[in-house]
Amino acid sequence: MPGVDAPESKVDLLIIGAGPAGMMAAAWAAHTGIKARIIDKRNTKIFTGQADGLQCRTLEIFESLGFADRVWKEANHMIEFSMWNPGPDGKLRRDDRVPDSPIGISRWHESVLHQGRIERFFLDNIGKYSRENGNEFSVERGVLPLEIELEEGAVEDDAAWPVKVKVRHLSEEEASPEQHEKADGVSDGLFRSNLAPDDTEELQRRTSGMEGREEVIRAKYVVGCDGAHSWTRRQLGYKLEGEPTDYIWGVLDIVPITDFPDIRNRCSVHSESSGSLMVIPRENSLVRLYVQVNEIKPDAETGRADRSKITPELILKSAQKVLAPYKLEYKHCSWWTAYQIGQRVGTNFSKNERIFLAGDAVHTHSPKAGQGMNVSMQDTYNLGWKIAHVVQGKAPRSILKTYQSERRRIAQDLINFDHKFSRLFSGRPAKDAADEAGVSMEEFKRVFLQGAMFASGLSVDYGRSMLIAKEGSAKEQGDGTEVESAAVKVVGNQALCKAASIGMRFPSFQVLNQSGARPWPFQVWLKSDGRYRVVLFAGNVKEPEQRQRVDKWCEEAEKSGSWLKKYTPAGATIDSVIEILTIHSAPRVDCNLLEDFPDLLHPMRPNYMGWDYNKVFVDDASYHDGHGEAYKNYGVDPVKGCVVAVRPDGYTGFIGELEDVEGLSNYFAGCLLPASKASNGS
Amino acid sequence: MPGVDAPESKVDLLIIGAGPAGMMAAAWAAHTGIKARIIDKRNTKIFTGQADGLQCRTLEIFESLGFADRVWKEANHMIEFSMWNPGPDGKLRRDDRVPDSPIGISRWHESVLHQGRIERFFLDNIGKYSRENGNEFSVERGVLPLEIELEEGAVEDDAAWPVKVKVRHLSEEEASPEQHEKADGVSDGLFRSNLAPDDTEELQRRTSGMEGREEVIRAKYVVGCDGAHSWTRRQLGYKLEGEPTDYIWGVLDIVPITDFPDIRNRCSVHSESSGSLMVIPRENSLVRLYVQVNEIKPDAETGRADRSKITPELILKSAQKVLAPYKLEYKHCSWWTAYQIGQRVGTNFSKNERIFLAGDAVHTHSPKAGQGMNVSMQDTYNLGWKIAHVVQGKAPRSILKTYQSERRRIAQDLINFDHKFSRLFSGRPAKDAADEAGVSMEEFKRVFLQGAMFASGLSVDYGRSMLIAKEGSAKEQGDGTEVESAAVKVVGNQALCKAASIGMRFPSFQVLNQSGARPWPFQVWLKSDGRYRVVLFAGNVKEPEQRQRVDKWCEEAEKSGSWLKKYTPAGATIDSVIEILTIHSAPRVDCNLLEDFPDLLHPMRPNYMGWDYNKVFVDDASYHDGHGEAYKNYGVDPVKGCVVAVRPDGYTGFIGELEDVEGLSNYFAGCLLPASKASNGS
Repeated sequence: MPGVDAPESKVDLLIIGAGPAGMMAAAWAAHTGIKARIIDKRNTKIFTGQADGLQCRTLEIFESLGFADRVWKEANHMIEFSMWNPGPDGKLRRDDRVPDSPIGISRWHESVLHQGRIERFFLDNIGKYSRENGNEFSVERGVLPLEIELEEGAVEDDAAWPVKVKVRHLSEEEASPEQHEKADGVSDGLFRSNLAPDDTEELQRRTSGMEGREEVIRAKYVVGCDGAHSWTRRQLGYKLEGEPTDYIWGVLDIVPITDFPDIRNRCSVHSESSGSLMVIPRENSLVRLYVQVNEIKPDAETGRADRSKITPELILKSAQKVLAPYKLEYKHCSWWTAYQIGQRVGTNFSKNERIFLAGDAVHTHSPKAGQGMNVSMQDTYNLGWKIAHVVQGKAPRSILKTYQSERRRIAQDLINFDHKFSRLFSGRPAKDAADEAGVSMEEFKRVFLQGAMFASGLSVDYGRSMLIAKEGSAKEQGDGTEVESAAVKVVGNQALCKAASIGMRFPSFQVLNQSGARPWPFQVWLKSDGRYRVVLFAGNVKEPEQRQRVDKWCEEAEKSGSWLKKYTPAGATIDSVIEILTIHSAPRVDCNLLEDFPDLLHPMRPNYMGWDYNKVFVDDASYHDGHGEAYKNYGVDPVKGCVVAVRPDGYTGFIGELEDVEGLSNYFAGCLLPASKASNGS
Repeated sequence: MPGVDAPESKVDLLIIGAGPAGMMAAAWAAHTGIKARIIDKRNTKIFTGQADGLQCRTLEIFESLGFADRVWKEANHMIEFSMWNPGPDGKLRRDDRVPDSPIGISRWHESVLHQGRIERFFLDNIGKYSRENGNEFSVERGVLPLEIELEEGAVEDDAAWPVKVKVRHLSEEEASPEQHEKADGVSDGLFRSNLAPDDTEELQRRTSGMEGREEVIRAKYVVGCDGAHSWTRRQLGYKLEGEPTDYIWGVLDIVPITDFPDIRNRCSVHSESSGSLMVIPRENSLVRLYVQVNEIKPDAETGRADRSKITPELILKSAQKVLAPYKLEYKHCSWWTAYQIGQRVGTNFSKNERIFLAGDAVHTHSPKAGQGMNVSMQDTYNLGWKIAHVVQGKAPRSILKTYQSERRRIAQDLINFDHKFSRLFSGRPAKDAADEAGVSMEEFKRVFLQGAMFASGLSVDYGRSMLIAKEGSAKEQGDGTEVESAAVKVVGNQALCKAASIGMRFPSFQVLNQSGARPWPFQVWLKSDGRYRVVLFAGNVKEPEQRQRVDKWCEEAEKSGSWLKKYTPAGATIDSVIEILTIHSAPRVDCNLLEDFPDLLHPMRPNYMGWDYNKVFVDDASYHDGHGEAYKNYGVDPVKGCVVAVRPDGYTGFIGELEDVEGLSNYFAGCLLPASKASNGS
């Protein structure tokens, strides 16, 4: 056992692993200002290759953090999906074209940019916000976790740091994994792929007894984002359930020289008898090919393939066979790897809601649907604000159970989808209707189109819980975890805002700023800063009766002990825990911010920094960008409006009438703790 | 005379002054890769205040350089312009609202962001591109020009460095101008305003005889962008012609606390008898107020006002009088200044086309139309690529004369506009139709609306020259400078592409990438990299006859000595001097890049980096973003198409039929030198 005298430090949140899932957890820590550290045993970030697909919902999340624009500018936007299959003569032909992202669901579409750039944007964002919020931190590399221990008696103690993690700061040499680098400088990804066991234990053995600084980190919370071979998961003794398959796939990132017409479209290509491939057009003229490699079979006993036999030349050869008679060559390859499909889900997503697992540590699947990086980041996007709220004393620990109920259910759905999609994609195309061993291309198309909505990330529909006030059983709608609020059962009135399904992300339509007439996609104002939002659809405030309802609603909110005042610490600005954003439906030019809207809806900013002009919006025609038709699109009555509570991660939690102050109060009673109990964490 | 032994260095381009005009000149040097230096006598960049208005055309230019997105994200977008005037009862009321930027002219609208941010984006951009292009440089601060000398006998010698500039590298202390900083940290802008004479000579006197490094810079070309009190202009003995006026204006950048309803709109406010003000809503809750200060009058003899009497309190007091009965207060002021309107234009914009003047050095006017920074940057945007072409041996020196003919004419137009606008803005509103001494508010509105198109920067229409093949007299359409090509007179056929007026910037409509279906505003592909572009409207390439015309056009271009081959150096890629971009009108799904378009239109990239998939576009419906109707909007025949030559700065130079190879050849004969004469400058 290493020395007991290793220096100790305390932290609200320790994140193990600095891939996209870990970075997203760190982003929440930075944006909410809690004290966090993020460690990774490797000594550099990713520079190329790896994951690359970014779905609509992921881009929306990036926007709420402030860097979607950087992705959107550099990424290749995937517009069209082409399906190539053997025709009746057995020859390859384009069977169909469809839009890659379903039309009308988001301002963003699926885009492709390599993981290294995404990590870069995260690093910049984490640095900026953690600095601004007073707890600056950045990724600590070459830090290897050695031991993790949970003091179980203290798990419910808000004042405790019950997780003890011993880490070792490696030397540069120790921290560099063997990269299987070829003479021409192309890095393969095998050292981190699903084929190769990851190197944590090996590294640990190698560094045992060697010189190097050790440190004990006492954390309130730990999130293990350390990949498919998660050290954290293994320490907790949790399993991934599922099976590998027989299919071996190679991945090549190349600049192709080819006469294949759709090389700049996303394509599925099923050959008659030489397997399948997928084309993913990338940034910087790159194209990623996912290629079925039939030459390498898994070992009959272990079920695993011998990775050393797979080379880029072999992958190219397989691709050439699939694409024949089209030609394919390349001079430039920036990255390659190989993997064996396996669909697995973790049995547990947390230990006592103190140590959590996220990303590949709790779900693995094939990469071809472009889901991996997205679902992994969305795990910690779901979790991070909840931990921050609990650490800050804003929320009860009970909300942390919703992480597993919400995300394990998503992981299960993902695995089911991937199982279906992979099978259809890897199978030999049916020769005709009678060929039952083959895959029907009609079925493939149907599954792809159904899957596109799922793949976008926008079909996520979290089940009932203290955070989601909808009908039904919390247990059945989640993964079985009990997440019903102990308080009064609240159910929102879905009919008042038909397009904002309770449990799904609050959708975005164009509105105008009342005061400056600038059009905004409303979602831009749902920033990831840890605040709940109450969207007041104020209706037509120029109708005296409706104006009275709005006035009354504001009066109720201003009362001592209201759903708003109760959670706002004394001395803090009124919008520090719950922010009210207003969308009204009266003609913009007939309204005047100060006259037509109570002060609560545009409060004076601290230090006499003027009225807040960015809280009241209107559903009206813009000069340059048309009419957002927000009331119509949200499905809200344009005269009477309604009230919608939106979680800090953008999911709709509650909907009610302006008069349903009790419902709103009951909703927040399940999510938040009264401010008197608020403390600052550490 | 300072020592003759000062060290000497050589440079293609020396830029004096690192404000926006200087930065834009430097950006061209960076994007074209010529050897440049940019010096400024101050030791820091601007951090706040100063110019802030950014017009449509400026944003288009920023996009072509690669940083419009950064501006667009941080800037306040100005959407509405409100006019407040006294009503019949003498009380202030909103008379009218109009869109601030004319509708439909650009994807961009007028935006506001302080100069310090613009300089930041330029610095980053110049660093990136000068590094990539192999001649890295950045702004050298605290460098004071002492002497400038032009060897007149060598001005026409391409191999010479005829300009000798002696500079002094100041110490930190020497380079810091006295900033009139108040105790509360608010910086006023007076040390750099029009009221205060600039400090060049004073600094020069102070540093004479002191320790410090001197250096002689031998330059092929010099651009003086050193402001209204330009040292460069004075050394050349050139004058600004025009007069100051009696109007004194104060400028306050504050976070206002006010009940004035339109504080987040751009407004003109004419009070009955207390003068006028303009409201410019800014980024970060700031509002800029331009306020007429009637308390301070110019000295009867000098015509200049005593700046020491103007304080922010005085400006606020004036503003309060104009806005009454609305209240106005503030706690936070980030910057303030005062100026006296003066409309002046330089007599000469260059000395022998070796030393140029740009920006405030050759035109001064009131800032309220938001033109200053824009017109100044557009001066050097016009000039920079021309200098680069001549330095690189691509173009004859004769093209440099077009700088004065094009930009001095613009400056004259600007001064005329500003004179009219300022007079209407500063005047007392007419009480009624009979009140001839007062300003008619109807006339004010008319001039504003007419002016909005001018202000956008999109009405710029360069006169005939060797670079602009249109009808008419070069002398009459410019400022009188002789810029007719010595070669055959070429006149483009305007009727073939009605919306791309020869002499105006090539407009932008949405097209799709043929190969990936991604929609693009076409302008995105007109990057500022120094290349001419030939836009081939290829028409319907699926019609055999039209396809033959396209094939024939490509064959002509591929011939030795063609308009394309003649200017492309041996060994360089075919698109290195003139890039062909194609927009066709056949249905996208019927076309195949390799089969339907000759290789010339999508050439193989060097080092076998694949076919170029970013050169052929189609006018077709997109999946998510509608139909650009590009042929209709450009006014081009959708079957027969046409050919448009676009200058490196995005202005339409020539239009012809596909068969008019002679016209195209003659056009380029006036702009470019055959490649055999090309050299690399320095």
